[in-house]
Amino acid sequence: MITVHGFAASGNCWKVAQILRSTGRAFDWVEVDSNAGGTRTAEFLAMNPNAKIPVVVLDDGQVITESGAILCHFAEGTDWLPAAGLARTRVLEWLFFEQYSHEPYIAVARNVIAYQKAKAANAERLAQCWTRGAAALDVMERRLATHPWLTDSGATIADLALFAYTHVAEEGAFDLTRWPGIQAWIARLAALPGIVIIEGPTK
Amino acid sequence: MITVHGFAASGNCWKVAQILRSTGRAFDWVEVDSNAGGTRTAEFLAMNPNAKIPVVVLDDGQVITESGAILCHFAEGTDWLPAAGLARTRVLEWLFFEQYSHEPYIAVARNVIAYQKAKAANAERLAQCWTRGAAALDVMERRLATHPWLTDSGATIADLALFAYTHVAEEGAFDLTRWPGIQAWIARLAALPGIVIIEGPTK
Repeated sequence: MITVHGFAASGNCWKVAQILRSTGRAFDWVEVDSNAGGTRTAEFLAMNPNAKIPVVVLDDGQVITESGAILCHFAEGTDWLPAAGLARTRVLEWLFFEQYSHEPYIAVARNVIAYQKAKAANAERLAQCWTRGAAALDVMERRLATHPWLTDSGATIADLALFAYTHVAEEGAFDLTRWPGIQAWIARLAALPGIVIIEGPTK
Repeated sequence: MITVHGFAASGNCWKVAQILRSTGRAFDWVEVDSNAGGTRTAEFLAMNPNAKIPVVVLDDGQVITESGAILCHFAEGTDWLPAAGLARTRVLEWLFFEQYSHEPYIAVARNVIAYQKAKAANAERLAQCWTRGAAALDVMERRLATHPWLTDSGATIADLALFAYTHVAEEGAFDLTRWPGIQAWIARLAALPGIVIIEGPTK
């Protein structure tokens, strides 16, 4: 059985659970609270020296880290990841965009406000998150205002990766009514069979 | 002809030039200084709304962004990227690690110190870069102390991606003598045929 070590409210961990559900794989879940030091134990660091969730342990004991790599691993050979060529590259562009230009602002704002409940102590950091996170949402809106999915290959792991923190961005005080194309895309993706949205603290 | 829009001193742009050289593709280079607003012009934003270099324009006018995606695109079908399966996933893990846990600290420290020449005005930011950058180098050292390359597949785009900013990390005031496995790996990769190292401002 595949085991996922993750935090249920984490978008990065949601990606892993969702691609496993969407590709019909059973898995066990071990809850790890990274805000409470759960990724800093000797046992956890032996799995992932980078001290980050999610971590996947395969049947044979092999460990896989990095949510983007995990998405690709389990999507390979399915409609969630096109075969090699420009169609696959388009998916990878969004996966890297998410980790570099989106998650560090949208996920962090949410974590500070909704989980650490430390809004007042992080005013400057949150201001940066809101500016840069809005810029990332603008880039997504530019595509989604006129297209149903992030790439021309239908719903792929690019959509799962960006959905993870975008559909709960309001917990980080982003007002999604500013981005109607994104709102429609969230509803479209959430309506696909087998999609399970994150139940955050404010829902 | 492939055209690369990039900044010659940027590690992210170096990755693109290097995989094109290493896979025998000719390309034109258009120099863009992101520190001087070169990615904020209307012409540039029409290519990449995310306002980031590198940007690749293929023969047919198709645009590819995100250095990790570009590495995968041109490495496909070569020894630089293993075929699908766990060997490929190992490469992707390092590509995402680089963009999330390494580049935001090691590249940023170098840019602030060596290019923006704004060390004094960024003391707090640099302190965070040095702490988190050192943690990323520790993760690399853990592997490279006992292995020649980052994955078991020989030199791959994982090594190119991490080499980009690691081999010039001293320009960001990281003392690489702390990480002897990394130093040996830098020398090993630089000695491969066709590798061209970055000529930075302090070299």
